Amino acid sequence: MNQACFGVDIGGTSVKLGLVSRSGELLTKVEFPSEKEQCAMFDEIAAQIQSIRDRFPLVECVGVGVGVPGPVLEQKRVLGCVNLNWGEIDVSQELSSRLSLPVRVENDANLATLGEMWQGAGQGHRNLVMLTVGTGVGAGVIADGRIIDGCVGAAGEAGHIPMPYHTDWSCSCGKTGCLEVTASATGIIRAAKEYAPFKDMLSVTAKDVFDAAKAGNEDAQRVVDEAGACLGMATAMIGCIVNPELFLIGGGVSAAGRMLLTPIEEAYRKWVFAPCRNARFALAELGNNAGIYGGAGLFFCQA
Amino acid sequence: MNQACFGVDIGGTSVKLGLVSRSGELLTKVEFPSEKEQCAMFDEIAAQIQSIRDRFPLVECVGVGVGVPGPVLEQKRVLGCVNLNWGEIDVSQELSSRLSLPVRVENDANLATLGEMWQGAGQGHRNLVMLTVGTGVGAGVIADGRIIDGCVGAAGEAGHIPMPYHTDWSCSCGKTGCLEVTASATGIIRAAKEYAPFKDMLSVTAKDVFDAAKAGNEDAQRVVDEAGACLGMATAMIGCIVNPELFLIGGGVSAAGRMLLTPIEEAYRKWVFAPCRNARFALAELGNNAGIYGGAGLFFCQA
Repeated sequence: MNQACFGVDIGGTSVKLGLVSRSGELLTKVEFPSEKEQCAMFDEIAAQIQSIRDRFPLVECVGVGVGVPGPVLEQKRVLGCVNLNWGEIDVSQELSSRLSLPVRVENDANLATLGEMWQGAGQGHRNLVMLTVGTGVGAGVIADGRIIDGCVGAAGEAGHIPMPYHTDWSCSCGKTGCLEVTASATGIIRAAKEYAPFKDMLSVTAKDVFDAAKAGNEDAQRVVDEAGACLGMATAMIGCIVNPELFLIGGGVSAAGRMLLTPIEEAYRKWVFAPCRNARFALAELGNNAGIYGGAGLFFCQA
Repeated sequence: MNQACFGVDIGGTSVKLGLVSRSGELLTKVEFPSEKEQCAMFDEIAAQIQSIRDRFPLVECVGVGVGVPGPVLEQKRVLGCVNLNWGEIDVSQELSSRLSLPVRVENDANLATLGEMWQGAGQGHRNLVMLTVGTGVGAGVIADGRIIDGCVGAAGEAGHIPMPYHTDWSCSCGKTGCLEVTASATGIIRAAKEYAPFKDMLSVTAKDVFDAAKAGNEDAQRVVDEAGACLGMATAMIGCIVNPELFLIGGGVSAAGRMLLTPIEEAYRKWVFAPCRNARFALAELGNNAGIYGGAGLFFCQA
């Protein structure tokens, strides 16, 4: 019988849920709005999974891998998710009691990194770090094929590395000068708004800034270069600590592609310890499905 | 029969070699000068181990764990050791062919960290980072009980994290502004020499600087505070990436004790992501024997 796993990516606005075969094929996928109430959320996820199992009677389901936007311990206990208004809860127990299947839980950034390692831009690598650059900056760290969670599930919180850029700008975490105040979409917009033509625009997106840089606006280019240099110096710091062979850049801002990768790589090679210089940089490939693949990867590509 | 392992710490000037029981008792220890010639070095280590085995006929020897001052892959292959004038070599094979025992090899800073986790200040912890602050700054990173080596064995090269201190000072690695240009013994001495009374001294040690600070010299205090703040910010960066529950400070400069730990802890709590703030800081306990314990730990406390 063919084996498959469910991958479930629980976000603040929607839940993405898919069935992935052992060979890495996404057999089916659904997306539905996140329930406001915790118990209703687990009921809905269980119902969706059961409905898919009914449609795939010949598939042997091995387990369910779940990603949540918060710290997780022992692939079970979620310590809290601000975006979901959750406190501490054993997600593994909540779902496995409803499904009679083994359930493993991970932080969503870690899970997306695992997904990319298993079926995306990280295939063939066992030491990689993925930075997700969107509204904030998140990261997943995988060393020797294993996700690094840290003692309170806060490993990979790269967005809050203190950086020597905009050291007086405050971050949502309460500190100042964090990586994400300069290098996230939010930071790029904030920096761009100091300059014409962005100063008077009511609504600016990171894409507007990249487009303006592409069109030759020097101020926009300066903002893009600074975000890239800041991300590159942060990857150099990460390189000196965990020495990955591959850095993946994902998230909305990564749509800028080469324009962002080039300054990141330049700053990385400038600032990292020389023996680490050969690390490769690439864009993530799985987009919004990375968490679903990662959920299945918790069973199919983790020991 | 009682089980034991050999731990061998190969340094640029001497080799420290000990027999450690499964329960963590150092049964015997020898130290001898490092041979200049590689083959003679392995012969000497093998002879010393055989001589100890003859003295402990009732001990069942499980293996030999070796630390070297350079990057190591797969606990076997040393990629090169500048201090020993070694190129790439399979140390595991060299020694196991002479001894008919399993041999595992690790970078010395990683091995010392494992030793502290098994029998020193890190007992009971599975997520810890040890910074060794001496002539330079080295580190070992352990996540979920496992040493992080990185793809070219360069994980834990914390001494070369780019820092916003003395950004124009050059480092032995070819970059500028690395952690160790500010926060090593070398860096402390370099900074102190800008001030009286150190300016005219022929020979200054880090201990001189700490002693002067203790005696009330404000310039010396400033140098000590800066080294502590720089180390503390670096531990905050490490905290955001691997989230350990414990940081150990070892190496010659750690003899300064509280005077160094306090500014490190203050800067850590200021700069780390809030959920990581509760990490504990302590001094390493095993001193020069950490590598010997770590060598045995490769067999007794690593999977």
